[in-house]
Amino acid sequence: MKKVSTESYKGVRDFYPEDKALQNYIIGTMRKVVESFGYEEYDASVLEYSDLYKSKTSDEIVNDQTYTFTDRGGREVTMRPEMTPTLARMIAAKHKSLLFPIRWYSIPNFFRYERPQKGRLREFWQLNVDIFGIKTISAEIEVLEIAFRIMEAFGLKQEHFKIRINDRVLIDETLKGLGLDEEQSAEVRRLIDRKDKIDNFDEEMTALIGKPLSLDILPNENIKTLIESLAKRGIHNVVFTPTLMRGFDYYTGIVFEVFDTSGENNRALFGGGRYDRLLEIFGEEKIPAFGFGMGDVTMRDVLTTHKLLPSYTSNAHLYICTVDQESFEGAYALAETLRKDGINVIVDSSSKKVGSQVEYASKKKIPFILCVGENELTNKKYILKNLFSGDEQEVTLSDIPKHIKK
Amino acid sequence: MKKVSTESYKGVRDFYPEDKALQNYIIGTMRKVVESFGYEEYDASVLEYSDLYKSKTSDEIVNDQTYTFTDRGGREVTMRPEMTPTLARMIAAKHKSLLFPIRWYSIPNFFRYERPQKGRLREFWQLNVDIFGIKTISAEIEVLEIAFRIMEAFGLKQEHFKIRINDRVLIDETLKGLGLDEEQSAEVRRLIDRKDKIDNFDEEMTALIGKPLSLDILPNENIKTLIESLAKRGIHNVVFTPTLMRGFDYYTGIVFEVFDTSGENNRALFGGGRYDRLLEIFGEEKIPAFGFGMGDVTMRDVLTTHKLLPSYTSNAHLYICTVDQESFEGAYALAETLRKDGINVIVDSSSKKVGSQVEYASKKKIPFILCVGENELTNKKYILKNLFSGDEQEVTLSDIPKHIKK
Repeated sequence: MKKVSTESYKGVRDFYPEDKALQNYIIGTMRKVVESFGYEEYDASVLEYSDLYKSKTSDEIVNDQTYTFTDRGGREVTMRPEMTPTLARMIAAKHKSLLFPIRWYSIPNFFRYERPQKGRLREFWQLNVDIFGIKTISAEIEVLEIAFRIMEAFGLKQEHFKIRINDRVLIDETLKGLGLDEEQSAEVRRLIDRKDKIDNFDEEMTALIGKPLSLDILPNENIKTLIESLAKRGIHNVVFTPTLMRGFDYYTGIVFEVFDTSGENNRALFGGGRYDRLLEIFGEEKIPAFGFGMGDVTMRDVLTTHKLLPSYTSNAHLYICTVDQESFEGAYALAETLRKDGINVIVDSSSKKVGSQVEYASKKKIPFILCVGENELTNKKYILKNLFSGDEQEVTLSDIPKHIKK
Repeated sequence: MKKVSTESYKGVRDFYPEDKALQNYIIGTMRKVVESFGYEEYDASVLEYSDLYKSKTSDEIVNDQTYTFTDRGGREVTMRPEMTPTLARMIAAKHKSLLFPIRWYSIPNFFRYERPQKGRLREFWQLNVDIFGIKTISAEIEVLEIAFRIMEAFGLKQEHFKIRINDRVLIDETLKGLGLDEEQSAEVRRLIDRKDKIDNFDEEMTALIGKPLSLDILPNENIKTLIESLAKRGIHNVVFTPTLMRGFDYYTGIVFEVFDTSGENNRALFGGGRYDRLLEIFGEEKIPAFGFGMGDVTMRDVLTTHKLLPSYTSNAHLYICTVDQESFEGAYALAETLRKDGINVIVDSSSKKVGSQVEYASKKKIPFILCVGENELTNKKYILKNLFSGDEQEVTLSDIPKHIKK
């Protein structure tokens, strides 16, 4: 028989329980904050018709990296590289029956065919938070507060990150006076986006438009209101950054990006913006929209940098060791009662020595054990041991949940 | 501009918030029960090298329905049609460092290219529960109890379903005396599997092996112990069924399938079995294994039949209406405090009439509202209204969480 490889596909991850627990911590923290703002979860399949990505919905770079193939029925399909086109499709399909404003989130996985490297994998997960149907800056205020509260929930302090904001309208106005066509304007925007990374910005700009371009742009009312409103909510790390472009073609107003100030994670951690016209590709009227996406791989890296990831503990709270076969039924009954009280329990029915049962629980990082034999089952008293602290105490069945939940 | 279709890919689902809430209920119920038995979550990418499915790991039918394509680097990849091959691969890759027994679960999505119909879609989710490293029947007892407790957690009663069990060893012994080759044995097993669905079983069997085959098989010790042990735990709907084959080639011992007794869902709802030899395809020694898979689409259908699905409520617990713009900051502060207490809060800053704010919350199925104006913010007393029951009461900020959590 030919031996099959145990490798996972290149650039994707296997999640062993310790990896999955970390992933669940990251995703669970995002979910908790977003839900605390009343956002509702939506989802869709990772498979979409390829046509969805062929119009102006996506970043060009993203489109060059898709997993696209033909199904057995001859349909061209793509594994989604981002969520916004899917979200816009879903809103467009039902916008007449949906009640606006809509506050939605999702934590889907994406596929992009790139060379795997730090912070970039071929499959990653991303929180997507979007609000539809609010024209005013109150959408930006709410969604940026959510972004901030998520960072806070991870244990990051204001000084650990900066929220850079800009308004696409400002740069559009600046460019309008120059008499450029669409393609030239796009090139100028791309150059501005790279300003902080290159030395010869003025020269390159002159090569493009015949002269240097002043970027002494003053913030408009939207930018000022946004900064002031967030400050009132205790958020003081928002910075107006007139060179911030954020690549995606579909943005129409405020854009933002969050940066790590430690210097260890150079690229934007995540970002988003206003995209009021995206539904037009489905032949629908425009609907105001503002949102952002926050990836799991990037967040894991930044939390690692700041030593903010929790250490692993087993899903099981309690391991019941059994002294002999005669104790099995009593142990099962105990376990069943505790499970109904929300305690996750494993019963050992291996008939191994108690010492090796305890050793197993300890290696598995299960926090509590108790051992059951004839004595315990007769007296209905048990020694509950915390394997992390070493503390022991005598308890009755009804005491156990409160000790463990503590 | 060409208009893009708002349709999702054929045979997959869009999950609008009401659909996702239902899905989260189904998956959340499964997760809670499985975790109460101390099982830990693992996961992997939906993309696997196609080689994984080319050996004896999979059902043939499943293999004929895969989504398989070549990536941009020339690698042949498959979107997983089931989890067991991935699970076996992960265990094989690390079996030297993993501590056995292992209790793992996952709730992955699968893709199968079939004609979409009731109970069958091209993408579905499936709970997978597996225990590795236990040779004795205690593995079967534990895992079948989990299967039963999940059904119970959904509100199903014992009389609503039957757990049919068989031991592959029994039929193998019966066939051994007939002197059949591997292919003939497989055909006989397939025919036995169809016994209850066809009229001419004896004739077809005679055509295959030259004579009818008696299936008056007595249960062995494993079957008896399993039925008795589960009965001790209050589980009385387990039935020995010597014709139960369960298609997959990789099963080596006890197999089981759960059937709805209402007659409305004819096929097995879900099932599983023992597969002690699967790791051999990776060139590893065998490891005892027992597990099952339970699909979301099938469970949704059976819960619909039994009217056991919950009705939809918004993720948001409380909607704060604002009387005027001067109340916004006070409303935000209130919301921030409540969110820290675990209450999911939306603040309306639309400046619309309070009546239409309340109407919106009601249509969105948000259970509670309160309105904030100068009076409320000065007196620090609020009228909390339950939009489902119509009940109102005057509360202070610190009262709100307990009213809502009740």
